[in-house]
Amino acid sequence: MTGKVVKMAMVTTKCLVLFLCCSLSHVNSWQQDQQLPIVKNNETSSGKLNSNGGYSYKTLYYDQQIDHFGFTNGQTFKQRILVADQFWNRNGGPIFFYTGNEGDIDWFCNNTGFMWDIAPEFNAMLVFAEHRYYGESLPFGQDTYKNVSLLNYLTSEQALADFAENIRYLKTTIPGAENSAVVAFGGSYGGMLAAWLRIKYPNVIIGALASSAPIWQFTDLTPCNAFYDVTSKTWLDASTTCVENVHRSYNVLATIAESAGGFEFIQKAFGLCTPLASKYDLETFMDFLVEMYTDLAMVNYPYPASFLADLPAWPIKVACSYLSDPLDGKPLLAALGKVTNLYYNFTGNTNCVNWTDDGSADASLGTKGWDYQSCTEMVMPMCSNNTNMFYNIPWDFQEVSDKCFEKYKVRPRENWVALEYWAKQLKETSNIIFSNGLYDPWSSGGVMESISDTVVAIQIPYGAHHLDLRGSNPLDTRAVISARIQEKNIIRNWLKITYING
Amino acid sequence: MTGKVVKMAMVTTKCLVLFLCCSLSHVNSWQQDQQLPIVKNNETSSGKLNSNGGYSYKTLYYDQQIDHFGFTNGQTFKQRILVADQFWNRNGGPIFFYTGNEGDIDWFCNNTGFMWDIAPEFNAMLVFAEHRYYGESLPFGQDTYKNVSLLNYLTSEQALADFAENIRYLKTTIPGAENSAVVAFGGSYGGMLAAWLRIKYPNVIIGALASSAPIWQFTDLTPCNAFYDVTSKTWLDASTTCVENVHRSYNVLATIAESAGGFEFIQKAFGLCTPLASKYDLETFMDFLVEMYTDLAMVNYPYPASFLADLPAWPIKVACSYLSDPLDGKPLLAALGKVTNLYYNFTGNTNCVNWTDDGSADASLGTKGWDYQSCTEMVMPMCSNNTNMFYNIPWDFQEVSDKCFEKYKVRPRENWVALEYWAKQLKETSNIIFSNGLYDPWSSGGVMESISDTVVAIQIPYGAHHLDLRGSNPLDTRAVISARIQEKNIIRNWLKITYING
Repeated sequence: MTGKVVKMAMVTTKCLVLFLCCSLSHVNSWQQDQQLPIVKNNETSSGKLNSNGGYSYKTLYYDQQIDHFGFTNGQTFKQRILVADQFWNRNGGPIFFYTGNEGDIDWFCNNTGFMWDIAPEFNAMLVFAEHRYYGESLPFGQDTYKNVSLLNYLTSEQALADFAENIRYLKTTIPGAENSAVVAFGGSYGGMLAAWLRIKYPNVIIGALASSAPIWQFTDLTPCNAFYDVTSKTWLDASTTCVENVHRSYNVLATIAESAGGFEFIQKAFGLCTPLASKYDLETFMDFLVEMYTDLAMVNYPYPASFLADLPAWPIKVACSYLSDPLDGKPLLAALGKVTNLYYNFTGNTNCVNWTDDGSADASLGTKGWDYQSCTEMVMPMCSNNTNMFYNIPWDFQEVSDKCFEKYKVRPRENWVALEYWAKQLKETSNIIFSNGLYDPWSSGGVMESISDTVVAIQIPYGAHHLDLRGSNPLDTRAVISARIQEKNIIRNWLKITYING
Repeated sequence: MTGKVVKMAMVTTKCLVLFLCCSLSHVNSWQQDQQLPIVKNNETSSGKLNSNGGYSYKTLYYDQQIDHFGFTNGQTFKQRILVADQFWNRNGGPIFFYTGNEGDIDWFCNNTGFMWDIAPEFNAMLVFAEHRYYGESLPFGQDTYKNVSLLNYLTSEQALADFAENIRYLKTTIPGAENSAVVAFGGSYGGMLAAWLRIKYPNVIIGALASSAPIWQFTDLTPCNAFYDVTSKTWLDASTTCVENVHRSYNVLATIAESAGGFEFIQKAFGLCTPLASKYDLETFMDFLVEMYTDLAMVNYPYPASFLADLPAWPIKVACSYLSDPLDGKPLLAALGKVTNLYYNFTGNTNCVNWTDDGSADASLGTKGWDYQSCTEMVMPMCSNNTNMFYNIPWDFQEVSDKCFEKYKVRPRENWVALEYWAKQLKETSNIIFSNGLYDPWSSGGVMESISDTVVAIQIPYGAHHLDLRGSNPLDTRAVISARIQEKNIIRNWLKITYING
């Protein structure tokens, strides 16, 4: 398709944002739903315990260096850290430290049930450290996102140094903590950070559980088509006919869009808030659908959940139930309209589907942050070659680079992350668990095979995006239950060895 | 002594500068003496071979990122790299990579004879990479040192990233180099960088020889008195009476300085260019002597050498020959004058001893660079408690910090280096040799005992500052010959294992 290249580069960026940030739109509502008010204590590095029926934790604010790697700017900012010590045994109980992703840390804190589930049996303190430039941890306060030059300190290296400083601080100031071994936990980008923290700062943590961490989703480390191939595979697992229908739909959309009354039909079939009005709109809408298909693969959980959207159990199975027969023409689009309604309006509270924005008005901060990161370090090549359920999506680094320069006056460095974080030379590190759900598109860039006795891969069949980090559920699969048992055993072993070696 | 605190903090800084930078004053003359013109090729990343009787190498200029850890400043600068490939076997010969210290890289290249000595038997390519902000590798050209804000990118982390980029570049662009294992070499601060490169980037080097690298000369890692204690021990090894004389001399100096004609006597006895004129001058002069004693320990080589100064073999033995009898009063100062003349005028070409400046007019660039580094990351506590051959030298971090702020508007971060480079948790890394001469004051902050089977300490009795990295000499001690054999064997073993594992 002519003129597709530019659009597709955008898809990739949007897709990443969605992967890591679109959940932000749910943060506020989630807090309200669950009635878990966050205690905000403005005193630096001190806090109060609050309990309200759900998870309880203190909120601390740590005076963090804005720039760890230069000294001219000696300013600090308030980094938010959540601490739950109600399960902790001061006599040697470990610290489980969540390396915050791109978003409000309270959201990750409340969505990482696995840590809360296992804290009592490990007598562990839980700590959730917010990633700089997200949530409340804004280096320049309300001005942080007003000037692109202020984004200069938004890098993974700075975030890792924040976490290392956090751990040193906790261990030297909390009575009893000096003897506590620290284990890092993280999912998605947070999982990448957990693994990288172990790689770059093994002096502060004894090991890391990196769940759904696509640390190899970078140039020369993973073929760019891998991500969409895994997505297709996940859908194929539900139904071949379903995937064939989706694959056929792009031409159908184009044909109908060109026909008289086509745009109106599409608006009605998909329940769109605003109609398509041009070929460009059609391409944007098709990107929007591609995102939805990948998102559904990410959240293809075995029970009803509200991770990226409110959805029933095994949502792809439900989606494919509308596409179980070979369809074409308008009936095909009508069926896809049902899939769209499933994803965007399962609760029935949505009046229409907004296909033109990033999914949330209040997500601008997190979206901007990750968008900047994917224009600097986190440039993850993705492409599709018109097989399975997607159309031809090329990858053009130069074009991405030019777009980034236009937006932020920065250019991504294509090979930097691989160099900085050891590419595939992970036999040089130790004590990392890389867990990946086989349904998760991001497993494409994950560590899927064990690298050594201590750098271990755990594959979770039928598992979606960091399913293992979620709280236990009666509908959990055997596979994720087994993965969690393995993870606990490995962590227990790290702790034992640490105690033996002092 | 009242008012000593301020001065002593200065001593420490000066001492570090001397350790790492004062040699700069010799760079030009050395080049002239040895007639080894450096080929300067202005084309980026290409060069010509030049041979002129001594070591031959090409000079390359690599377009290096000014800021690896931020993207707002996308500028690059020309980093100088010296390459000697005349011994290299393109079919698997290794690359020996010197991680440049704070100074002109050609000087380190020409003073690291060990690499040149062993290159033929290893069929190795030699590479010497210049440290940013030194020599010709100035990020902002002639403006680099004109504005303190331009010094912001002068950190060890940026330098390590430079080296990692260099290695990636060499391996991906030189035909045959993609299969070459890389071993890092470095002495003194360069040794710290070699070890840290292995710690932070084990993906680019298979191991590091870190000679005389005081990586633990930091807060909470080594007692602040260790440095001067080792210095005293080195002198004690020559003569107890000598050390007692030196220890006695400070009070003698103070008494004579206060007496009529005392300043004149001191000027004459020590051959000073300018006389002392105040109590402050006396303190400055005593600091100057302390530096000289530590420098003599650093360069206490078994043969005549010109490392920090032109000196005979075992210069401390020679110095102590003037102090072999218990002395006091003016005869003691006259004997110390002979020691000073030995250090500053062994060749007889110096008219008088300049005790007021840093030792060299042309060393400003290197001196400034290191002075800035010791005001940011490289803050190494040193003190003495009036035992052995020194007076009471307190350590006051706050005072150092205030001085630094006054000079550069930056403050050192006392615990940063320990956190960033794993403090004593070196069991988490592998394949590092830490060699230290027992005569070298800097061995106080070195790794003196092996940490694991692969992080190995080699002690060199009677060895001064990175003696093992110097070229072989007929007067070499058995100890250093043995150390070099061990080093070669260990490196050979790394290379074998690498080849076996692919």
